Amino acid sequence: MWGFSPAFVGTEFRTRQTQSPDLVAGLKPHTYKTPTPHCAGGGSGKIVDMLKQIAGTDAAAVRHPRKKTYGVKVGHVTVGGGAPVVVQSMTNTDTADVETTLQQTLELAEAGSEIVRWTVNVPEAAAAVPLIKRRLLDAGCNVPIIGDFHYNGHVLLTKYPECAAALDKYRINPGNVGAGQRRDEQFSTICRVAVDHGKPVRIGVNGGSLNQELVMRKMQENTDKNLGKESEEIINDCMVISALESTELALESGLKHEQIIISCKTSRPRDLITVYRDLSSKTQQPLHLGLTEAGMGMKGLVWSAAALGVLLYDGIGDTIRVSLTPRPGGDRREEVYACCELLQSLGLRSFSPSVTACPGCGRTTSSTFQELAERIQGYIRESMPVWKTQYDGVETMTLAVMGCIVNGPGESKAANIGISLPGTGEAPRCPVYIDGKKDVTLEGTYDELAAAFQKLVDDYIVRSYPRKTAEIGSGR
Amino acid sequence: MWGFSPAFVGTEFRTRQTQSPDLVAGLKPHTYKTPTPHCAGGGSGKIVDMLKQIAGTDAAAVRHPRKKTYGVKVGHVTVGGGAPVVVQSMTNTDTADVETTLQQTLELAEAGSEIVRWTVNVPEAAAAVPLIKRRLLDAGCNVPIIGDFHYNGHVLLTKYPECAAALDKYRINPGNVGAGQRRDEQFSTICRVAVDHGKPVRIGVNGGSLNQELVMRKMQENTDKNLGKESEEIINDCMVISALESTELALESGLKHEQIIISCKTSRPRDLITVYRDLSSKTQQPLHLGLTEAGMGMKGLVWSAAALGVLLYDGIGDTIRVSLTPRPGGDRREEVYACCELLQSLGLRSFSPSVTACPGCGRTTSSTFQELAERIQGYIRESMPVWKTQYDGVETMTLAVMGCIVNGPGESKAANIGISLPGTGEAPRCPVYIDGKKDVTLEGTYDELAAAFQKLVDDYIVRSYPRKTAEIGSGR
Repeated sequence: MWGFSPAFVGTEFRTRQTQSPDLVAGLKPHTYKTPTPHCAGGGSGKIVDMLKQIAGTDAAAVRHPRKKTYGVKVGHVTVGGGAPVVVQSMTNTDTADVETTLQQTLELAEAGSEIVRWTVNVPEAAAAVPLIKRRLLDAGCNVPIIGDFHYNGHVLLTKYPECAAALDKYRINPGNVGAGQRRDEQFSTICRVAVDHGKPVRIGVNGGSLNQELVMRKMQENTDKNLGKESEEIINDCMVISALESTELALESGLKHEQIIISCKTSRPRDLITVYRDLSSKTQQPLHLGLTEAGMGMKGLVWSAAALGVLLYDGIGDTIRVSLTPRPGGDRREEVYACCELLQSLGLRSFSPSVTACPGCGRTTSSTFQELAERIQGYIRESMPVWKTQYDGVETMTLAVMGCIVNGPGESKAANIGISLPGTGEAPRCPVYIDGKKDVTLEGTYDELAAAFQKLVDDYIVRSYPRKTAEIGSGR
Repeated sequence: MWGFSPAFVGTEFRTRQTQSPDLVAGLKPHTYKTPTPHCAGGGSGKIVDMLKQIAGTDAAAVRHPRKKTYGVKVGHVTVGGGAPVVVQSMTNTDTADVETTLQQTLELAEAGSEIVRWTVNVPEAAAAVPLIKRRLLDAGCNVPIIGDFHYNGHVLLTKYPECAAALDKYRINPGNVGAGQRRDEQFSTICRVAVDHGKPVRIGVNGGSLNQELVMRKMQENTDKNLGKESEEIINDCMVISALESTELALESGLKHEQIIISCKTSRPRDLITVYRDLSSKTQQPLHLGLTEAGMGMKGLVWSAAALGVLLYDGIGDTIRVSLTPRPGGDRREEVYACCELLQSLGLRSFSPSVTACPGCGRTTSSTFQELAERIQGYIRESMPVWKTQYDGVETMTLAVMGCIVNGPGESKAANIGISLPGTGEAPRCPVYIDGKKDVTLEGTYDELAAAFQKLVDDYIVRSYPRKTAEIGSGR
């Protein structure tokens, strides 16, 4: 065990101004003609910044070559065509319930979801869509909204033109848009609504609702021609065929390449990788990645990150969703945070400063470094909504909180700011490295240490990241 | 909202026998000559099964070709040489504290860690190693133990021969085994101890403690020869050079190829992937994979799964560790569960039945499916220690708990047992599919539903997975 002598005075954190309410006046929402956007409280700064981020380019994304795809505009957000990989999520509120869907959509957008999807399953939901969309805009949030349709999309989009107008994209599942001859008719109907309203579609194939007529045909063909394929392989083939045939049909229905996004989700990572690699080699439509039905907690996170990680690293994928099953009463925003972590882990996007912290071992029997790592992560989470609106590039900052001499100084030097705490038996001094150079050695109690480290972080930010221009920074 | 009418009577779960205490009598621990293994309570069944699993081969691992490596025996566990990818973890207790280290090691092993590492940093720790090892064996746990050495490994392993004898592998970090001429001498000393005791070593290079003399030399060479490499690239090169040069030195010191495992950990996923791909192309020594200093919670999980996932999918990696920073007071076993999930996600190993559950959306506004998914996962976690000892292959079982008609029947058919709950507005009936065929339709209250589904799972297991042979099943 070890302690710190009180060697310095605790610091007081700078109070940061929240954004002025008319900050978003310059934004031009895509769908509605006469929005009166104003901010609903402190969260609005985050949304505004999110929109900016998408509008610009991401240095990391440019560095790593990605598969070339058409650029599809979903509201003000570009998916594919060289744009940074877009984070999206889906509400689990009843869409017919305007208040809860509005609230959850705002939360998801503020957490970093650049597109949000709502199910549109019944007439009440279709009727609610334009109302919620208007309320979002009134709240200063113009996050693009996707309508998720199954079975009756052709009916709802035709009978509720205001719903069709309010949505920024329609998701069509070719596996359950109807059977036989009616399948193609109903699919075409949705595409024609999209053409009329100038909207893009996602052709969203899913292993759990794959066109069974197609599967039966291919199974038969496998038997008849003695092709020797395993049923798993045939199903994977059918996913891709369904997506590509549906794309052809969408094009024939009048949609352009710049209006079609494709997904082919399965719940098994290896199948997902196989299907998307095949798909990516056969189409230039932008791809929406996701492991469907990923499951709960750690399972959902690990399975999604492994599956999507392989594909994203290969340059495949233009927008992602992580389909976590929330625990009862759980926080829906987890799926957004997971997307952000995944993209940041592979250097594709930067959303927030990352904290490198060691796992600890028998050399670090004090839990101080764990507590400090947790505290500084909490401080970042709390401060980023404001930092992002004020400091250009602050999201790329790297911190290290290390527990002993073994890797402590090395990792600390590799970070923008790193602190190397003493392990068991080491002298109670904490060298801090800034941009690779030893800056100061901290000593003191845990609270003093935490306060001093946070002050160093604050000072570093002010010193190192340019103030954003007046447009963002002054609330003009 | 929807409810179930009470259409059936709740089921009582079969009480399963826990294993007899002399279950492990047939095991032959590797290091000690006269162990008296006996089980310490109900957890022992898990350990026994873990040992069996390693001894056998894994169907999934055989299906997917992996890079060829030498097989290295670590205690009774083979790493590389075509063996299934091995799960490992590290304690964060003070190794000098016999009781806490013993306890945590048992917990990690029971959670599925097939190898456990302890830091051996001071004489007190070295002295404790043989004591803890004996206590482990007395408790019926012969999980191989790795000693983690930095700076003074040559001294501790020489002065404490019982420590050297008790450990199943020594980890040497070539970045901090000494400087200049003494580096090679001290490195060789450790290797010679390994030769004398017939133990393998891991040459564990780490970005945070990379041999700085090597880095300086390569940086200078880059400047002198105008090679134009970025410093990131030079550091990655140096990681691999350090590992390969150290391997040469270990071979010169008398170790065989079958005694050397290599790791080159960094905290940045892209660098990790680059380094390991390079390493894998240049050596046939088995590779230990891990993202070092992965960080806390979701960040640590997602970053590790993405980085290791890419490599494992490529066939690279013979043993893995997920270096999560526990939250203060957190459960160290999380890092073991994460390893298991990762290997299972990619079809490389099977540890436990997996539950496919949908993320829910506006169609599933009742939380029943979330609750059922959570309950069945809890039931599996609770039952697996016993199931594993009784039913051959039960860990490969797949379940699905789905929230509505969209993907519900499809995913349910793809699982061994799947239940498709009704979404909002759907009729309150739950079709259950077994091995792709509709079996029964459940109705009733949540409790009745949960009980009936669990009974179906129980019955399926009894029917589908052969009873394990007497050796395991009868406690002989």
